[in-house]
Amino acid sequence: MNMRILAALAALTLPFPLIAQQSPAHDPAALQQKALGDNTAYGIVEDLTTEIGPRLAGTEREAAARAWAVTRLKAMGFANVRIEPFDMKTWVRGIETAEVTGPYSGKMHISALGNSASTGEKGLEAEVVYFRTLADLGAAPAGSLKGKIAFVSHKMTKTQNGASYGQFGGVRRIGPSLASEKGAAAIIIRSVGTDYHRNPHTGGTSFGEKGVPIPAAALSIPDAENLERMIARASKKGEAVRMKLVLTPRQIGTTQSGNVIAEVPGSDPAAGMILIGGHLDSWDLGTGAIDDGAGVAISAAAAKMIMDAGTPKRTIRVVWWGAEEVGIFGGRAYAEKHGAAGHALAMESDFGADRIWQVDFRLPEGTDDLQTRIANALAPLGVGRGRDVAGGGPDHGPIVALGVNAIDLQQDGTDYFDLHHTPDDTLDKIDPKAMQQNVAAWVTVLGIVANDPADLLPKAKVAE
Amino acid sequence: MNMRILAALAALTLPFPLIAQQSPAHDPAALQQKALGDNTAYGIVEDLTTEIGPRLAGTEREAAARAWAVTRLKAMGFANVRIEPFDMKTWVRGIETAEVTGPYSGKMHISALGNSASTGEKGLEAEVVYFRTLADLGAAPAGSLKGKIAFVSHKMTKTQNGASYGQFGGVRRIGPSLASEKGAAAIIIRSVGTDYHRNPHTGGTSFGEKGVPIPAAALSIPDAENLERMIARASKKGEAVRMKLVLTPRQIGTTQSGNVIAEVPGSDPAAGMILIGGHLDSWDLGTGAIDDGAGVAISAAAAKMIMDAGTPKRTIRVVWWGAEEVGIFGGRAYAEKHGAAGHALAMESDFGADRIWQVDFRLPEGTDDLQTRIANALAPLGVGRGRDVAGGGPDHGPIVALGVNAIDLQQDGTDYFDLHHTPDDTLDKIDPKAMQQNVAAWVTVLGIVANDPADLLPKAKVAE
Repeated sequence: MNMRILAALAALTLPFPLIAQQSPAHDPAALQQKALGDNTAYGIVEDLTTEIGPRLAGTEREAAARAWAVTRLKAMGFANVRIEPFDMKTWVRGIETAEVTGPYSGKMHISALGNSASTGEKGLEAEVVYFRTLADLGAAPAGSLKGKIAFVSHKMTKTQNGASYGQFGGVRRIGPSLASEKGAAAIIIRSVGTDYHRNPHTGGTSFGEKGVPIPAAALSIPDAENLERMIARASKKGEAVRMKLVLTPRQIGTTQSGNVIAEVPGSDPAAGMILIGGHLDSWDLGTGAIDDGAGVAISAAAAKMIMDAGTPKRTIRVVWWGAEEVGIFGGRAYAEKHGAAGHALAMESDFGADRIWQVDFRLPEGTDDLQTRIANALAPLGVGRGRDVAGGGPDHGPIVALGVNAIDLQQDGTDYFDLHHTPDDTLDKIDPKAMQQNVAAWVTVLGIVANDPADLLPKAKVAE
Repeated sequence: MNMRILAALAALTLPFPLIAQQSPAHDPAALQQKALGDNTAYGIVEDLTTEIGPRLAGTEREAAARAWAVTRLKAMGFANVRIEPFDMKTWVRGIETAEVTGPYSGKMHISALGNSASTGEKGLEAEVVYFRTLADLGAAPAGSLKGKIAFVSHKMTKTQNGASYGQFGGVRRIGPSLASEKGAAAIIIRSVGTDYHRNPHTGGTSFGEKGVPIPAAALSIPDAENLERMIARASKKGEAVRMKLVLTPRQIGTTQSGNVIAEVPGSDPAAGMILIGGHLDSWDLGTGAIDDGAGVAISAAAAKMIMDAGTPKRTIRVVWWGAEEVGIFGGRAYAEKHGAAGHALAMESDFGADRIWQVDFRLPEGTDDLQTRIANALAPLGVGRGRDVAGGGPDHGPIVALGVNAIDLQQDGTDYFDLHHTPDDTLDKIDPKAMQQNVAAWVTVLGIVANDPADLLPKAKVAE
């Protein structure tokens, strides 16, 4: 409250450009200091993971999370809290077991991939055909996998910026449809992950419009490596390893999902709003702590801190997105409904809860000074300026594609794929201190951009 | 072979005491150098975990492991390879699921404890009553748990020597029988472990001769902490958390287990044999890599290295014990059959595969020089001399109790309880370099004691 009075007084006595650039109410150093001692974000993710838990897109649990979110965002004091619903086709998990039946034995830890077909309750027993890489699977002759289980065992490596997910995630995204084309009865992959625990990494796959879905699942990494050893030993004896899979997921048809929206109204609606958030849905194996309870918590805690410090020039719109994991359905529905108009900037937190180490921009020409001020203000938090073009986060992809600006506060992803899409995505994996550093970085950027005089409204796009 | 000839020549030309103390064939420095470049031990545990996998005591898988072991030990060149069978009562795991049914929701990762009763396939739904410690459970009034699920959430801490397992393991060993006495319908415990993964730690419990078995299971640590948060929130609202458990383990009656024995015959049978080994059975959730594939591998690889270097004075008897996990049945059967007579020393490896950091002794008076020589020979491997009295390992407890000497090569247990009795006990957790250091320490001690002139035979015990 004192801060607001100070801001009002300052507005009366100082020349406009200086106010705009250094809003006393949203002074980066003061906001950072406050954020580094504030546990609002951790409280949000603690409550969400405890009171709601897993919240698969399109299910009753995601609906429960939306209802919880509306109550929570209203209690935090945000304006215009509401749900924007949309319809989606929904897939749910069933039984999932895997067992080596010969020449060795053993149960393996497995989880179906999103959109996997079912083996039926009686399961499927077949010979396993090993491919070291996705490219090797691609090179298999048509029809050569008929009646067999394809096994692809690409090994992912750790990277700070998560870049290896692009390459190695292909096994999960494309592998199943490739195996289906070649006649495989099913496909199992080494989990797309970097840990060594008996936790399979689930995630979405797609068979396209015309493809024939087959059972598709991920083995935990210790299981995948054990299977490789079994195959190597069996092949020396001229034998093939056989497995029995029981996977009974199913498509349950059209259900409802939705985006939960809340706002910090700005003093100058014409300046365009800042769109921030994370996704509320999660995969069903963990409790969705780092993916993406952390993101909804960091973005909302930062917006609340701005709101509590004083009215910003620009409106901040917080969106807790629905149905990100299964195809960015929330982001697509939003872009279709709202378009780019009136959006000055998009920022999302969806890469865990580790410290932010880099900032990247996608801002119009003539904003060099703004970018330098942001980078300088972030430096005390250990954040360096990167050379990538910001993407704005997965849920903002659709409106960034329509011309909206973006800033990415890059989280350290070195250990992110130890936990990503596994049962291990639970609250205990979040370091409260790292989360405070995230909020401090977010509030820094919001405090500057929300009050900046630059014209950040998207220009009408020329048809390409 | 050259080493043997050298040893024989040396025996002809050097005075006896010096030979005995510094057997050239078993020179510690030379053996250590060889061990630090040898992968025999890793190969054994790799083969065992890949070709056999989990091998629960009394089951067909443990029998398969014994058959595998006989073949393997013969192929390594050991003499007198044989199985000494014994009968045991056998418990096997069934279905195991746990779900919070109110006022929150969520599936939890759970595993039954050995000797747990069944809930029946339809399961058991009841109110959860929380106890912070085992002592708190002990203080609950008789009958106060009737129809309820007791939940004890003791937190274990990491220690290098594993001492905390004595204290905190009590929750698993005694908790279920205490809860049964007080009328509980079932008991769930926070896993006795130090990790933060969704892996329950199983392990044996006992209801005694007269106790009534109840369903008893361990939650993974992230699940236990989430349940604690749920209980705290619900109790603020005056509500109780309810859970549904489905646990269908069963006692399958009397089956056969056995100890697998192999020997390096010594030149002086009257000097008494050195009994070494690890246990061949494992819990059924992992593949038994660190518990205790590592131990059978380290002990046998060290014995083979002694055998290959030349005939020792004392016979080395390698035992791969059966049914350790469920009550040290193999060690008890051996002590009953063989007694203490003729055993100069017992040493077991059963605390993982991390580096050895300490040596402890239980040797007769007058062996100070021997102990000093052993400690000095181990020092180059980073092994310090401890002040504990050696126990000889769990399987050797019964004969050590009859008066047999013991030396403990203590492995670093700091991270052991991250993996102990979980699905995560898999080959990838073993560092081949640390395993070589283990073998180097073992071969050092064996090389010295197997050739030492000291009288190490057990004295006839006076009835106490």
